[in-house]
Amino acid sequence: MTGFASPAAFDAALRDLRAPDARAIAAARARQDQLTKPAGSLGRLEDIAIFLAGWQGDARPIIDRARVAIFAGNHGCVVHGVSAYPASVTAAMVANFRAGGGAVNALAQASAMEVTVTALDLDRPTADFTQEPAMDKAECLDALAQGAAMVDPGLHLLAVGEMGIGNSTAAAALAARSFGGDAASWVGVGTGVDSAGVARKIAVVDRALALHATAAQTPFETIRRLGGRETVAIAGAVVQARCLGIPVVLDGFIACAAVAPLAAFAPAITDHCLAGHCSAESGHRALLDHLGLRPILSLDMRLGEGSGAALAVSVIRGALAVHNGMATFAQAGVAGKDG
Amino acid sequence: MTGFASPAAFDAALRDLRAPDARAIAAARARQDQLTKPAGSLGRLEDIAIFLAGWQGDARPIIDRARVAIFAGNHGCVVHGVSAYPASVTAAMVANFRAGGGAVNALAQASAMEVTVTALDLDRPTADFTQEPAMDKAECLDALAQGAAMVDPGLHLLAVGEMGIGNSTAAAALAARSFGGDAASWVGVGTGVDSAGVARKIAVVDRALALHATAAQTPFETIRRLGGRETVAIAGAVVQARCLGIPVVLDGFIACAAVAPLAAFAPAITDHCLAGHCSAESGHRALLDHLGLRPILSLDMRLGEGSGAALAVSVIRGALAVHNGMATFAQAGVAGKDG
Repeated sequence: MTGFASPAAFDAALRDLRAPDARAIAAARARQDQLTKPAGSLGRLEDIAIFLAGWQGDARPIIDRARVAIFAGNHGCVVHGVSAYPASVTAAMVANFRAGGGAVNALAQASAMEVTVTALDLDRPTADFTQEPAMDKAECLDALAQGAAMVDPGLHLLAVGEMGIGNSTAAAALAARSFGGDAASWVGVGTGVDSAGVARKIAVVDRALALHATAAQTPFETIRRLGGRETVAIAGAVVQARCLGIPVVLDGFIACAAVAPLAAFAPAITDHCLAGHCSAESGHRALLDHLGLRPILSLDMRLGEGSGAALAVSVIRGALAVHNGMATFAQAGVAGKDG
Repeated sequence: MTGFASPAAFDAALRDLRAPDARAIAAARARQDQLTKPAGSLGRLEDIAIFLAGWQGDARPIIDRARVAIFAGNHGCVVHGVSAYPASVTAAMVANFRAGGGAVNALAQASAMEVTVTALDLDRPTADFTQEPAMDKAECLDALAQGAAMVDPGLHLLAVGEMGIGNSTAAAALAARSFGGDAASWVGVGTGVDSAGVARKIAVVDRALALHATAAQTPFETIRRLGGRETVAIAGAVVQARCLGIPVVLDGFIACAAVAPLAAFAPAITDHCLAGHCSAESGHRALLDHLGLRPILSLDMRLGEGSGAALAVSVIRGALAVHNGMATFAQAGVAGKDG
């Protein structure tokens, strides 16, 4: 079975995380230094190629199959007026993704990625987390399993994205619980609420944090109480990808918040992750810092869906094009430095 | 004939710069607001699509044909020990580009761009600009014409790059002359000189600035005295592209310095330009600010060749994929904000 047998099994997986292949990393680094360019002159493109080598266990990593896995869920907290859009938009956008009409579809096509869309019980929103845990344990385990199931072992790279009216509020709660700071420091405008909407979001996050303050602070309990089905599915996908040695590209604030409770417990969980971009959502930069991730892009995007991650894959493809396609000094007969 | 009949004709072209198509810009902006996403949520991707619409004069711009034009030249100032590499590397790298082995080749292929390589009299370096003007007027006009000739009217997008051992020193001189500031504020490590090399570069730039301080400060005179053949060719290509309404993607510090004397005289010259990236060369960020350009990428690259510009084209393609490929709210039946 794909997924985790119990809450304890999920938490235990975070204590025993696979490491990258040190030999492949060393071999990839050696190759970079032989390519016809000054050492280090391709900056983060070199780092990205070496990173992929480590997780794929191959000095010459490839991306033949890349997927953006989109997860969608609905949120009980929308009753508090935390979004500018009605909850029905979640299902409408899922239909749009399935028809190929979303931004993420266009960007995935441009980056030569396949797209999966997983709608998690949209007609059954999570519970209002200001009143009770968002999910019971079985619901949370199911969402983890649905996330893990989207990680095809044949993938060379996985990007994760989300859709869920109200989920930037849940994400702020996850970030605050994971890394501290008050609600206001993690709440942003999301899809575009006004200042009154931001104030409502802050109040909702404050109430949720207070309600669950004395609950067990394990990763599983945190994502179950404060998350949404789609953020839990992302957590499941990220852990499953790690088990399989598949590198992951995270998307924006919400996708990053989905792994925050895992990273607070086991910081190494982001070692196989790249941050596709830094979004315009106000808390994302700080969240990336807490996760130890430097974004590939920073283009004021704030859409979610996996859009920033899918776009970043085109840059990642560039890093591999250089790594695998350039001539070496010996091949080209070019003199090296001080030659 | 392609090019400019005289120094005065070149300078005059900068006084009469074509404007973008306002109707296409308005129509592209209106389309962005109908796509299935919160208004503005794709950030700079929206700006890039609207920018391309303006210069292509089409609300639905395309990139069927994109080119990275590489220009190479050699520099008299290398006698002062300003580079970590011997001048012979310029020709060797030109051969490498022609054989398809350079970073720019790999990145152009990944971005589906054609590549042209123009070697400008490599066996005849420019004069040592600490002693005399780098070029005479005929040489400078010839380099402008060779740059302009690489701008095929059928292109939808042009990226410009350069190769030339010693040219980060010339670029620092161009930037200092154009925008002020002392030599030290514009000199960086280039391909990787040590601190003594940086000190030599600063001294060379100081001497060049002093020698030419009282010369005419027209754009033509500045690029002739302080530039290289490859930077002059870039200037010619950028002005020619403007005449043809072809948007341009600039590369790193040196490509940007090539247009600095033009922008100091006519700031609007960069209106049809995008900055592909901000390089790790220390002066590039300030130079971009002077040019009024925000880089698309910032990945610590510092190679030149057009590598950063070619990589940025993959992001630009993403911007157009969204603009042309997404569904509208009406097509998808999705409710808009506060709907």
